[in-house]
Amino acid sequence: MNTLYTNISQLATPRPGPQRGAAMRELTVLEDAALLVGGGLIEWVGPAAEAPAAPETVDLGGRAVVPGLIDPHTHAVWAGDRLADWEAKLGGATYEEILARGGGIRSTMRATAAAGVPELVRLARPRLQALRDSGATTVEVKSGYGLDFDAELRMLQAVRELQGEFELIPTLLIHVPPEQGRAKYVRGVCEELIPRVAREKLAAAVDVFTEKEAFDVDETRAIFEAARANGLKIKLHADQFHAIGGTELACEMGALSVDHLEASGPAQMAALAASDTVATVLPGVTLHLGLPAAPARALVDAGAIVAVGTDLNPGSSPVFSTQLALALAVRLNKLTPAEALTACTVNAAHALGLSDRGSLSVGQRADFAVLHGADWREVAYTLGASPVADIFLTGAKP
Amino acid sequence: MNTLYTNISQLATPRPGPQRGAAMRELTVLEDAALLVGGGLIEWVGPAAEAPAAPETVDLGGRAVVPGLIDPHTHAVWAGDRLADWEAKLGGATYEEILARGGGIRSTMRATAAAGVPELVRLARPRLQALRDSGATTVEVKSGYGLDFDAELRMLQAVRELQGEFELIPTLLIHVPPEQGRAKYVRGVCEELIPRVAREKLAAAVDVFTEKEAFDVDETRAIFEAARANGLKIKLHADQFHAIGGTELACEMGALSVDHLEASGPAQMAALAASDTVATVLPGVTLHLGLPAAPARALVDAGAIVAVGTDLNPGSSPVFSTQLALALAVRLNKLTPAEALTACTVNAAHALGLSDRGSLSVGQRADFAVLHGADWREVAYTLGASPVADIFLTGAKP
Repeated sequence: MNTLYTNISQLATPRPGPQRGAAMRELTVLEDAALLVGGGLIEWVGPAAEAPAAPETVDLGGRAVVPGLIDPHTHAVWAGDRLADWEAKLGGATYEEILARGGGIRSTMRATAAAGVPELVRLARPRLQALRDSGATTVEVKSGYGLDFDAELRMLQAVRELQGEFELIPTLLIHVPPEQGRAKYVRGVCEELIPRVAREKLAAAVDVFTEKEAFDVDETRAIFEAARANGLKIKLHADQFHAIGGTELACEMGALSVDHLEASGPAQMAALAASDTVATVLPGVTLHLGLPAAPARALVDAGAIVAVGTDLNPGSSPVFSTQLALALAVRLNKLTPAEALTACTVNAAHALGLSDRGSLSVGQRADFAVLHGADWREVAYTLGASPVADIFLTGAKP
Repeated sequence: MNTLYTNISQLATPRPGPQRGAAMRELTVLEDAALLVGGGLIEWVGPAAEAPAAPETVDLGGRAVVPGLIDPHTHAVWAGDRLADWEAKLGGATYEEILARGGGIRSTMRATAAAGVPELVRLARPRLQALRDSGATTVEVKSGYGLDFDAELRMLQAVRELQGEFELIPTLLIHVPPEQGRAKYVRGVCEELIPRVAREKLAAAVDVFTEKEAFDVDETRAIFEAARANGLKIKLHADQFHAIGGTELACEMGALSVDHLEASGPAQMAALAASDTVATVLPGVTLHLGLPAAPARALVDAGAIVAVGTDLNPGSSPVFSTQLALALAVRLNKLTPAEALTACTVNAAHALGLSDRGSLSVGQRADFAVLHGADWREVAYTLGASPVADIFLTGAKP
């Protein structure tokens, strides 16, 4: 049955498909609009005065509507917390002192590896609900805190269980090299973990943390080749602290996205601008750690496809709102409100290999957010409270 | 009737009264605590095992409890919006161009002056609810968008009406000089507006915006003298862009607080450290406008009494969460979590001339926030979602 959503003060949307460079600013903004949904998809969108008849009508109360936000980068499944680490660091402790007292990412890995799937599900649920409350209708979730392959699989099984409640896209993240035996570990990733994850359909893509302190370019290439051989897409954490060649490799191999990019220089930006690989920036890390912002403004100006995500994780980005990530991208990365909305919708969809969502256009999934206010720009302007009153997922309240 | 609140995983509180310098870090943190409330005040606080009997017991579910947050600086009453200004500015428009198209603070003043009290109340209510949802139990609200005295009085009347729903402290703000006849305007403020506000008990204090583009030190002194002659307390906006002597004047005249301080130098910091005047910093402005942060770290280290507020307003700080202001003070102003909690509780109370709240200590108002989590530090750590599950105002859910 078709439903007509009416009394929409403003409907703002990018065009479908990835948008690069100046096209990121070219939103369609309809005043006094209506939206027809059937079978979970958008069947018609336009001025209310021209709306077709429908058996059911929903009055949206003169509020603004934007596409549901898409969060293309989270680590929403973890156990334990990093509050003591954070307080110690703010009090002047060095990273070495924090490690010596048992803190750092390995404390999250120990706690996560010690948790069963039900506990991981219980802990992740309110985080995913917070993202939804902020307007997110699709959320990527990575593994990567497992100390061993079984723990990695448990993280992905937790995501699978939560897929009944949320629209989630799981990613296998090869994150932290073991302290010993890394060649054997990478071989195991390629020959055991990736084939098993592909066989059990536990992830849509494989991501690698390519960095001086993590995996190098040769290891990354081997993991990417195994991913492709097993039918999985590829994406990358790169240029967070040092540009060691990960971005160039990812663009060359046709990765969905390269994420972080705080340390990207002209060569990395040119590679991204010349490719269909999305440049995903994560302003929550900038705010939480006080590190330099990724050059999103320059990436847009160079013609790249730029997306924004929360990077929700306990150590470097405790940002429980996809909308706040969007709002921070305007303040910290100097995107315009229109660019930031495009970054958090169609471009984020493209970073996940999805072309069926992110735009309020005929044939797209009817995933949308209704704001409290009448002006779509509140989705970028508002800080500290959710400007989102309601979300609809394939045309229904979840 | 007394009520015992039990099953508090952690109860974290500063001592009562203003805390300066290193004392801002000295929280009391009780594990497995209980809190006895009678007549709206705290009658006992301590380890659950030693709790006295009470006719009524409320189980807080193993969550953390902190004092209700106090927001000492908001402009929560306004009409109109500044979304077009903001988008134009982000798109490269100069301030002069924004003014030429009818934007800037005077557009907020025109819209506010054109609104009646019921509309101002209707517009402010969801903003105050958002601050409450973030943990604020007491909120200061300023006038200052009135083009004329009647509009100023309507703003304060709107605050008075909302005092039935929220715990609000009203301030008369002398904000924007008229384009012509400023000597006459200041005389009118001193001889008509302040006496009338005092007579009708519409404000607890008078605030002035002392800045190159606003009121100078001599005008500020005249306004302060009129405030004191009429029994009102004084506070100040100063050193936002230029340190022109406002902070020194405020400290000399015993102002409750000096707010902003982004441009304060060693002389201003020394004056604040040597006084009982609170140094209030507003990190939302830093984030929204991308301007330098106020030197809160140096102010604490110098021994000042530092508070933090949202500065909620449509032009320079659309921060609808007192908790986010607290969390930003850690990231942008380099306070520790403990210092930020003290800044947003007892020190914020002192900035409003209040000594009956801000600490979970015997005899204080039973205004407290129950977090979702078990660790009090989540109140400073969490970005983008409210870590506050419930608030209690004089021992009751509002």
